[in-house]
Amino acid sequence: MLKNKVNTKVLSGFVELLPEQQFVFNEVKNKIENLYKKAGYLSIDTPVIEKSEVLFAKAGGDTEKQVYRFKKGDNDLSLRFDLTVPFARYVTEHYNDLSLPFKRYQIGKVFRGERAQKGRYREFYQADIDIVSEENLSIMYDVDIISTLYSVISMISSLFNLGKFKIKISNRKIWEGFLKEFNIKDEKKYAIINIIDKKNKMDEASFYSELSNIINDDKIENLIKRMFEIKFIPNFGISIPEKYYSDFSFINSNELIKEGVKELETIISSLSTITKNSEVFVADLSIVRGLDYYTGTVFETFLDDFKEFGSISSGGRYEHLCDNYTDKKICGVGGSIGLSRLFVPLIEDGKITIANLNSNMIDVLILPQDESVYNYSLNIKDKVSSSTPCKISIIYEKKKFKKLMDYANKINAKYVIIIGSDELANNTISLKNMDTGKQITDSINKVIEILNKDFNTKG
Amino acid sequence: MLKNKVNTKVLSGFVELLPEQQFVFNEVKNKIENLYKKAGYLSIDTPVIEKSEVLFAKAGGDTEKQVYRFKKGDNDLSLRFDLTVPFARYVTEHYNDLSLPFKRYQIGKVFRGERAQKGRYREFYQADIDIVSEENLSIMYDVDIISTLYSVISMISSLFNLGKFKIKISNRKIWEGFLKEFNIKDEKKYAIINIIDKKNKMDEASFYSELSNIINDDKIENLIKRMFEIKFIPNFGISIPEKYYSDFSFINSNELIKEGVKELETIISSLSTITKNSEVFVADLSIVRGLDYYTGTVFETFLDDFKEFGSISSGGRYEHLCDNYTDKKICGVGGSIGLSRLFVPLIEDGKITIANLNSNMIDVLILPQDESVYNYSLNIKDKVSSSTPCKISIIYEKKKFKKLMDYANKINAKYVIIIGSDELANNTISLKNMDTGKQITDSINKVIEILNKDFNTKG
Repeated sequence: MLKNKVNTKVLSGFVELLPEQQFVFNEVKNKIENLYKKAGYLSIDTPVIEKSEVLFAKAGGDTEKQVYRFKKGDNDLSLRFDLTVPFARYVTEHYNDLSLPFKRYQIGKVFRGERAQKGRYREFYQADIDIVSEENLSIMYDVDIISTLYSVISMISSLFNLGKFKIKISNRKIWEGFLKEFNIKDEKKYAIINIIDKKNKMDEASFYSELSNIINDDKIENLIKRMFEIKFIPNFGISIPEKYYSDFSFINSNELIKEGVKELETIISSLSTITKNSEVFVADLSIVRGLDYYTGTVFETFLDDFKEFGSISSGGRYEHLCDNYTDKKICGVGGSIGLSRLFVPLIEDGKITIANLNSNMIDVLILPQDESVYNYSLNIKDKVSSSTPCKISIIYEKKKFKKLMDYANKINAKYVIIIGSDELANNTISLKNMDTGKQITDSINKVIEILNKDFNTKG
Repeated sequence: MLKNKVNTKVLSGFVELLPEQQFVFNEVKNKIENLYKKAGYLSIDTPVIEKSEVLFAKAGGDTEKQVYRFKKGDNDLSLRFDLTVPFARYVTEHYNDLSLPFKRYQIGKVFRGERAQKGRYREFYQADIDIVSEENLSIMYDVDIISTLYSVISMISSLFNLGKFKIKISNRKIWEGFLKEFNIKDEKKYAIINIIDKKNKMDEASFYSELSNIINDDKIENLIKRMFEIKFIPNFGISIPEKYYSDFSFINSNELIKEGVKELETIISSLSTITKNSEVFVADLSIVRGLDYYTGTVFETFLDDFKEFGSISSGGRYEHLCDNYTDKKICGVGGSIGLSRLFVPLIEDGKITIANLNSNMIDVLILPQDESVYNYSLNIKDKVSSSTPCKISIIYEKKKFKKLMDYANKINAKYVIIIGSDELANNTISLKNMDTGKQITDSINKVIEILNKDFNTKG
């Protein structure tokens, strides 16, 4: 019976990498995970599937439309669309079993059925860190989050030559205080914050025209324009152009603005103690973040040479994330790196490859020449494997030597061990360095010594 | 406005671990992944969501009922229920880009909406390895799969004191040949194989009574009974009790049986070269595996002291897995460890804990005593972190010292660094070993030296 074959192409908007691409992606993911761990963040792993009522307790609008939502039996289920909402649920549920402050990282897939386009996927990895505690979480935890992401992005950027980057930081309280000063609140407030959030993606004329549509008050519009001229100088503080002193006199009596400015100053000056490069951490009032759960610090990260990625890492402080789940006041600060959004395009375009890494897919490939040496070869593999840190593969192929060398090159093997009847008879093995082409025949102990010398010194 | 709070309990049948449990689970997962990599298997990562027609090209019956299946737009989608079917799709789709033989590992979550019970989850991790190639894949690759799983289970068992285990191996061709000899085929054949698959879970009387219901032929039933008395002796071969010689005379002319026996002998004798313990690898004709895609080698693994887990690792050889996707003959052999099914109950019951591991959740916890030393402490953290392999956390809490020590113990910190105004004034830090209680105050370089001595020698 003839049967049509099923199409095996991966779904549109979903990522599937070839092994050598996957290797690079995994190495990056592991390096990020190790830096998160090194900075004292603990791992949790929440289910991919959540009750819809949990995910939609807070979200709404566009997010809700994008979610993969379905019924199974009586359950109304959804695939998580981020790692923050499940984290809020986790913290609420396990509150009494957690040691506070609780610093957690989570690297996992999230799902959004949005229109597929390059760098926008329907299933993609995010790499989050958050710190939660009771009320009065020190502003230094904001520094912890940002400095940890700084260490990660520095590592990534230097490993793959991605150039300079900036972490732009602001504080929601400053705009909240400003808008409160003019009695702008609720929907109008969020509309203004949403437009400010888009400022860096628009030309100036469109920005102020959209702003004007909402505010319709020349005095306030002018003040907003001037807000963007305010500078923050590390270890000094806020600097307002002298000509605007009288316009901004209200700042000294606006508690929210004063708090926001003080927090921002503390963060920028603390961060300046961990790097000599004063251009990395920049206070920037155009950063507000669209999401309405942020209440204080907000930040975004931009690569100077890859503006097309937009912000590659962002986050902020939130005080009400668990409010839909509990009456307890749970306060947190967090940030995230869009792993897939940043790395999948870079890998697929060949901009970052295995050549950037100090690591091989396979360190040693063993090639037994015929069946008579299979068990001897297996024994050699076992010995070399248990005495070295090498990744060792063995293949049993009756192919021409040239074909086998091609295979060794394709799977990126650093060494090849060749075993034939001579080696078996003399209890030796032949080791070929694929980089230099140099080949030796020696005892297994000598080969183990060579491999340990090469691989034990590596990161 | 009062609002009902959303219930944050995780869905029934879904796993969620506390941080200290998650730490143990992750360590095990990482160790398994490292052994897979060390044995030359390459990572791939396929989407969690697949087109339903891809998943159901082969499966059916119970599997289909368990699957999480839903529509999104025009797409009929499902969550993967194993890692094997997506792998078959991946190999077919990327066939021309893969270097064959292709050895891959994949550790990921799979989803089955079956009735929730202990050790049976609806979302759980599997850890698979497979080797695929064109036709004529050497039987030594079966040895590669089984020996790799052996190394993993040996590691697990010795790390957590889980005792002895057996890998029971058989070959489908032996039963296929046997049943062909008596012209038993199609549905009847699969019914018999399914009953043999359940033999070890039933008492003998029920087993033979069920068998009799299907076969209804005393002669064949007796021969099946005698099949289970056949022994395989490594480096010698098949051993049939002398009194049955005449009954089994057909074996010498049955090509399928001869092939199956030869393959089984090769595997058992090759595996015996990698361990001195001859009791680990056992030929056992009661192993057939229920799934109908296996065509040769089949195996299952049992812990002597934890019979309740059933088989903790199993697999086999398949020759037709990609047939629904392509006309190319793709041949493979693979095996899997049921990560969640084995470890989640062991962790939840406290049978394996962080005490089994040579690793801390946090190596060093830094405790700045007040705000005046925050920036100094941040600087210390940065220096210690970049000069040692330690996982270092810093907390900014205005709590009693005793409370902070409780926190250090709870998050399993090995050392605490205490920084107060004295330390700042003298440019020193105080280091307390939480195991011994010993505390010193010294220069940062001396502390880095101590930490490197302790942590660099660790695996």
